[in-house]
Amino acid sequence: MDDIDFMRAALAEAEAADAAGEYPVGAVVVRGGAIVGRGRNTAVASHDPTAHAEIAAIRAACRALGRTKLADCTLYTTLYPCPMCEMTIKEVRLPRVVFGGSPYRWVREVKFAQAPFAPHGPVLEAECRGLFTRKLRELGREDILGYEESP
Amino acid sequence: MDDIDFMRAALAEAEAADAAGEYPVGAVVVRGGAIVGRGRNTAVASHDPTAHAEIAAIRAACRALGRTKLADCTLYTTLYPCPMCEMTIKEVRLPRVVFGGSPYRWVREVKFAQAPFAPHGPVLEAECRGLFTRKLRELGREDILGYEESP
Repeated sequence: MDDIDFMRAALAEAEAADAAGEYPVGAVVVRGGAIVGRGRNTAVASHDPTAHAEIAAIRAACRALGRTKLADCTLYTTLYPCPMCEMTIKEVRLPRVVFGGSPYRWVREVKFAQAPFAPHGPVLEAECRGLFTRKLRELGREDILGYEESP
Repeated sequence: MDDIDFMRAALAEAEAADAAGEYPVGAVVVRGGAIVGRGRNTAVASHDPTAHAEIAAIRAACRALGRTKLADCTLYTTLYPCPMCEMTIKEVRLPRVVFGGSPYRWVREVKFAQAPFAPHGPVLEAECRGLFTRKLRELGREDILGYEESP
């Protein structure tokens, strides 16, 4: 299993979120070459603003491992994390984050230097970014989310 | 009901967390003069790193109101929020945060200017701060958490 395989697992979560009418973002937490937590966006149905894929995967991994720090793990997420998820990643000491799509100009220009972890990517960007882009277009929310088609 | 009354409600949550062996932090979300969400730290028992009082109160309020934004609400928390909670507060557009204790020097010196909301406090600082300080002393963790006794 390599970065692409784990990103495919995250993408499967994103596709499941999409099918459920949620924002199509998925994530997995990997430790020692194995997936220890999976998560997908469920914010719409649950009215839970913290139900982002990254946080769901982190909570699942912590439950599975019986602890609250993930310093020996890697997070795979189909979309570069929002500030709330960034700080949750910092809180659990996740040192490495592999991302699929990073569609926001401010993310590319500002966040990498400040990220409280080592970002790596994009991996499978066309699939990850394409899924999210299609959702934004359906909702007519490209402008609200600051999406930039061309880097 | 004024700020002190609502902070007492948050303090009651903190005391319940304390009694359960958790970090003694409590929070409530208020809308139109009424409490719409209550939360307390449960991270130790649940192995959930996101189970901070502020996030628990926000999730409870969103469930109760059936939405994911709290732009018309105020958050009361017995301790100035950590970065993860700060960004969650920003995510839900909470415009006003009333805090009890703000024991960390870096919070006082750095964070107020950057806070993504209007911080107000301290309110009932002796009680809120005292409860947390006692817990840190029990655990011998003053240094890890950067606690400064005298501002």
